[in-house]
Amino acid sequence: MAEADDSGVVTAAILVIGDEILSGRTKDKNIGYIAEYLTNVGIDVHEVRVVPDVEDEIVAALNALRDRYDHVFTTGGIGPTHDDITADSVARAFGVPIDVDPRARALLLERIPEDQLNAARLRMARIPEGAELIENSVSKAPGFTIGNVHVMAGVPTIMQAMLDAVAPSLATGRKMLSRSIPTGLKEGDIAAPLGDIQKDFPDVSMGSYPGFEEGVGFTTTLVLRSRDEARLGAAATVVEAMLAELRSGRLVDT
Amino acid sequence: MAEADDSGVVTAAILVIGDEILSGRTKDKNIGYIAEYLTNVGIDVHEVRVVPDVEDEIVAALNALRDRYDHVFTTGGIGPTHDDITADSVARAFGVPIDVDPRARALLLERIPEDQLNAARLRMARIPEGAELIENSVSKAPGFTIGNVHVMAGVPTIMQAMLDAVAPSLATGRKMLSRSIPTGLKEGDIAAPLGDIQKDFPDVSMGSYPGFEEGVGFTTTLVLRSRDEARLGAAATVVEAMLAELRSGRLVDT
Repeated sequence: MAEADDSGVVTAAILVIGDEILSGRTKDKNIGYIAEYLTNVGIDVHEVRVVPDVEDEIVAALNALRDRYDHVFTTGGIGPTHDDITADSVARAFGVPIDVDPRARALLLERIPEDQLNAARLRMARIPEGAELIENSVSKAPGFTIGNVHVMAGVPTIMQAMLDAVAPSLATGRKMLSRSIPTGLKEGDIAAPLGDIQKDFPDVSMGSYPGFEEGVGFTTTLVLRSRDEARLGAAATVVEAMLAELRSGRLVDT
Repeated sequence: MAEADDSGVVTAAILVIGDEILSGRTKDKNIGYIAEYLTNVGIDVHEVRVVPDVEDEIVAALNALRDRYDHVFTTGGIGPTHDDITADSVARAFGVPIDVDPRARALLLERIPEDQLNAARLRMARIPEGAELIENSVSKAPGFTIGNVHVMAGVPTIMQAMLDAVAPSLATGRKMLSRSIPTGLKEGDIAAPLGDIQKDFPDVSMGSYPGFEEGVGFTTTLVLRSRDEARLGAAATVVEAMLAELRSGRLVDT
């Protein structure tokens, strides 16, 4: 399991596997959920990829991501049908054998009568050698962790249960703190003074997020993020003062 | 502009740029929209990546994707603030200069009074040399196309307007046709006979999508996809017959 390095930062990537996401038929609900969840426990998501149900693509993306980040979370492709090839792809990426795992088979039997545990359903018990199972409290068929890769279902309710199951075992870092500041101002009026403040606070990331509503026009929310509460507070104070100046019309934007 | 090859397949990737997606603060709504839109006009999305507001990351992902796919669609990072670095990153990826573009500046002036067109807002007129503008019918600040890369806004309403503006100019392929078949059966009962049918129809992709609802349990929808309407129809007929057999209990799953 990856450990936090000296910087206190633990990184992750999300790998979404599935033709149905790429065709637009299914609108992904997992990326945003996992990203928010991991941020809240102190793991920074640095990259997301979505790849099709093609073994070479899954293997290549998984190897690129697991080499680079502390954790990789995959979703999708662990069901019983011919297009569910995630477990086999992960085994190939790690260069380990894969077969029906007695622990996983036993879990399936908690839900599926033995006479219905056909060859297709047994595919859900195929687990790469050396992997630890991830409990599925919804429908039993487990996910698994091998090395720094956590393999989860694509169905959101099941994925969420698996994330709850695996999260407590993860090395996490210093939590990223954030402060959201609605401005009531246009982004183009804030940009220059915000950029100046950003230079004074290189350790506080300052994001500016425009929204647009028909009839209302643009709105801007600033989000400050840092692992240091004191620095975050100091930056927020300076930003709030800048916004007050802007609103009063005293700060002339150039 | 990329042309459809002999296979009639035109490929694309989506590159989402933005820390706010990776932190989970903003839930992406663009990937699913673009994927469905492109599928409907005959362009196959093969890969999606989400990267942070970091120039090296944007450049590396963009170069990997534009080499590999016919089109790349980016979203996010083209506003007026210091964290909007997409246009500069794209220029670097292509190795071309970037500066304020008179055409883009003129568009901004259609919406922004000249005395409010400050240095920050003028950043939205920075366009890499050789790029064509993509019209923004919502708020004027344009996107742009350079080579096979289409750079769009992150705000969904604006991105959607830009996609409408750029789509008619794109080379597209033979449209992927699909047929959705609700089964009323469990995925594990369908898996084996469906796998057999898939082998007989290598040119028709057969996806199986489980849903799970609390209290209801699993439901399964099959989605058949092909560019050949006759083959799609033939495959659907065979699948429907298989499902009828399964429902009647005559087909014994092994």
